[in-house]
Amino acid sequence: MCPHVDDIPLDKSNAVAIETDSPHIPMPNGNSNVETSSSSKDASTLPPAAKPVHQQQKKNAYGPRYSDFLSNTSNWSIIESTLREGEQFANAFFNLETKMKIAKALDDFGVEYIELTSPAASPESFEDCKAICNMGLKKAKILTHIRCHMDDARLAVETGVDGVDVVIGTSSFLREHSHGKDMTWITKQAIEVIEFVKSKGIEIRFSSEDSFRSELVDLLSIYRTVDKVGLNRVGVADTVGCADPRQVYDLVRTLRGVVSCDIECHFHNDTGCAIANAYAALEAGATHIDTSVLGIGERNGITPLGGLIARMMVADPEYVKSKYNLPMLREIENLVAEAVEISVPFNNYITGFCAFTHKAGIHAKAILANPATYEILKPEDFGMSRYVSIGHRLTGWNAVKSRAEQLKLEMTDEQVKDATAKIKELADTRTQSMDDVDRILRIYHTAVTSGQMKVGEQEVLQELLDKHMPQDK
Amino acid sequence: MCPHVDDIPLDKSNAVAIETDSPHIPMPNGNSNVETSSSSKDASTLPPAAKPVHQQQKKNAYGPRYSDFLSNTSNWSIIESTLREGEQFANAFFNLETKMKIAKALDDFGVEYIELTSPAASPESFEDCKAICNMGLKKAKILTHIRCHMDDARLAVETGVDGVDVVIGTSSFLREHSHGKDMTWITKQAIEVIEFVKSKGIEIRFSSEDSFRSELVDLLSIYRTVDKVGLNRVGVADTVGCADPRQVYDLVRTLRGVVSCDIECHFHNDTGCAIANAYAALEAGATHIDTSVLGIGERNGITPLGGLIARMMVADPEYVKSKYNLPMLREIENLVAEAVEISVPFNNYITGFCAFTHKAGIHAKAILANPATYEILKPEDFGMSRYVSIGHRLTGWNAVKSRAEQLKLEMTDEQVKDATAKIKELADTRTQSMDDVDRILRIYHTAVTSGQMKVGEQEVLQELLDKHMPQDK
Repeated sequence: MCPHVDDIPLDKSNAVAIETDSPHIPMPNGNSNVETSSSSKDASTLPPAAKPVHQQQKKNAYGPRYSDFLSNTSNWSIIESTLREGEQFANAFFNLETKMKIAKALDDFGVEYIELTSPAASPESFEDCKAICNMGLKKAKILTHIRCHMDDARLAVETGVDGVDVVIGTSSFLREHSHGKDMTWITKQAIEVIEFVKSKGIEIRFSSEDSFRSELVDLLSIYRTVDKVGLNRVGVADTVGCADPRQVYDLVRTLRGVVSCDIECHFHNDTGCAIANAYAALEAGATHIDTSVLGIGERNGITPLGGLIARMMVADPEYVKSKYNLPMLREIENLVAEAVEISVPFNNYITGFCAFTHKAGIHAKAILANPATYEILKPEDFGMSRYVSIGHRLTGWNAVKSRAEQLKLEMTDEQVKDATAKIKELADTRTQSMDDVDRILRIYHTAVTSGQMKVGEQEVLQELLDKHMPQDK
Repeated sequence: MCPHVDDIPLDKSNAVAIETDSPHIPMPNGNSNVETSSSSKDASTLPPAAKPVHQQQKKNAYGPRYSDFLSNTSNWSIIESTLREGEQFANAFFNLETKMKIAKALDDFGVEYIELTSPAASPESFEDCKAICNMGLKKAKILTHIRCHMDDARLAVETGVDGVDVVIGTSSFLREHSHGKDMTWITKQAIEVIEFVKSKGIEIRFSSEDSFRSELVDLLSIYRTVDKVGLNRVGVADTVGCADPRQVYDLVRTLRGVVSCDIECHFHNDTGCAIANAYAALEAGATHIDTSVLGIGERNGITPLGGLIARMMVADPEYVKSKYNLPMLREIENLVAEAVEISVPFNNYITGFCAFTHKAGIHAKAILANPATYEILKPEDFGMSRYVSIGHRLTGWNAVKSRAEQLKLEMTDEQVKDATAKIKELADTRTQSMDDVDRILRIYHTAVTSGQMKVGEQEVLQELLDKHMPQDK
């Protein structure tokens, strides 16, 4: 199917990760590990390589298969575009100082590339580009993103960037209403720019724009042409956010068979698929994903850095942890959120205030027994912490029991259930804070141990609470 | 592949939608319509039915294929769970009044089902359940969501709901750390509860929990068993948010071949796939999708109502518009956001403040020529409006020209380019508001028409601006 198998690492780590690499992070159907170690001892004691493939597959009916030899979910790079796509966000206006702060933070985090606004956009953009190239970042290569014009290309190479990302609209919408050129002109132009940039000895990427509304044959033709001319990456861009994961998988998988260079993907999030599309692209053999911090960009933005990390942690946690400084995520998001005057969404991936909060009683009970039951990500990997919310009417007595234990209050199950009933009764009128719950437990514990009340004497308990609980609430 | 082809509508509308149903909303590769009408006239004049299938497919290389006979992307229902899953959101505490407001709004919007917290959760939950059932909603059926216990089932039917959603954990994680029961016990329990609820003549759904970490064979066995017993829906739930669209497609497509009842799907968003997974599930033959307003739920939540709508508008805009009162979306989101004390995320689907804001010059230019170039959704469908941002250094002269025209200022292209240079120069130090831009244009226009200055006399222009522009900024 793909003539470039040799270029693409057979994705062992990915399949193996699910079996053994991440015992603490349960993977889809990862529980079958248990089955195996109990039911088929001999097999499980063999080294993975020695196990028959069909048996390894059987362990995870939904997981990666060895037939997915194209998958790069354990072999990919980030092209961080907060300083390019992100600068196109409605609120974004980065001065050089802010740009340098963000570039430094992204480099410390460990992104492979940082993409900057075209130096052709304004005189300051040009100067900022040069300044950031001179920062001497540790790891991140600097790219700038330009239109497919020789004028822009000449400016770009002058800035000292490590590479140039060239883009041109290939859909008839853009050909008609944007630059108004046909595919022949586009191809000719592309080759001239590519040859020029290569002659300067730096990286070059050629991307179509609005790829998913472009004629498939036009796309494949121009990608094949530029690939033969020779370049580092071709780019696929869902500029309007219309693509879904199966379309992305089909296109990238087809493209993987047409070009031998790397494949970069750029996904807008207008219809909520930017993260899933990035994942599908990697499964189909893409190598580079564009992100921005908190996803900021045109309209509602692109694949967010944190969201992509969350997704990829499921595929191969060890690989992600080995590449990036995950606990920095929150700090980078705060830095950018402040710069563009927005607040981090309440439901943000990983760092959202409720990302690791468990509320329903049944969840709380299981989480207390084993966090893996209701968590696919471990908060500690990101320097975050887990919170089990119990002061509400959905709470279960198991959560209350564990809290009582944390407070070193010796109580029988009967007593805990009795106290829980009261907590839920109070929560029916107002959510009880952790402090409220603690007070109720302490008052209850003192009362039953001192003999002031017996289990089930709700009236006595109410009197004690009225007496000892703060009334201001 | 699927024994229930007859149960599943051959999804013509979906494929057709892309060709003709929605001329204004460009679909992936929809531009090929243009190609056709120009290049293959005869074919395009034939009625769709008369066209050879391969030709219709050729028109959209990424779109739905007739081989996707399972697809329900034009035939699905919403189970709105803001009052159940949403009540498990960290900040959520809904009193009856709020619950009724939300239920009323969701009914007016047009959701098919509204799911409520289990009456077993607390005395108030039980009373609220009854009260909402007595509201006499226009369209929405009322469901309540319970554990797979006879006690809960008895309470549920007493409330007067139209249906009961039963759930039980099937993954070894939950079997071990949550309820601690084996599959045989689960199956026996499930059948008892299903038979009981059916005996009351209301709808019944049986769902596994944490389906993507459950043994595939266990899952299929229990689904087949309950399907044979007879029920309205089986449910698939990605309780921890670990699934990706290809896994979802595989499982739902397999399940579609095993059961003849409807298939409901519930997706958490921990790793950013909740919307894409819902779409993949519908493509694979699912019939019902769980949503909540703004996605609120355990941790960072589930498939958001607005996000699902945005996604489905791409598949079949006419179908979505025919079912739901789209301009109400913003009002419902504001209602819920206020109730749980959060703000609507800056990048929210459809209603986010920047969802229809276009900034980069190249985008602005094209949008002004034809919004379809950079929009897959039309703001007017949701009672929203488009904003083209031009007062910044990435702006293009075409956007400025169109603004000048809107202001009825007659200017030559040369003059507009000259004024644009000044706007970008000023924007390099501070983003210019629409008012700033308008003032600059008016001052420029007066100056050149009155002969005070000529094109290119930037110094003169600067003096005039210093004199006439407010200095407080």
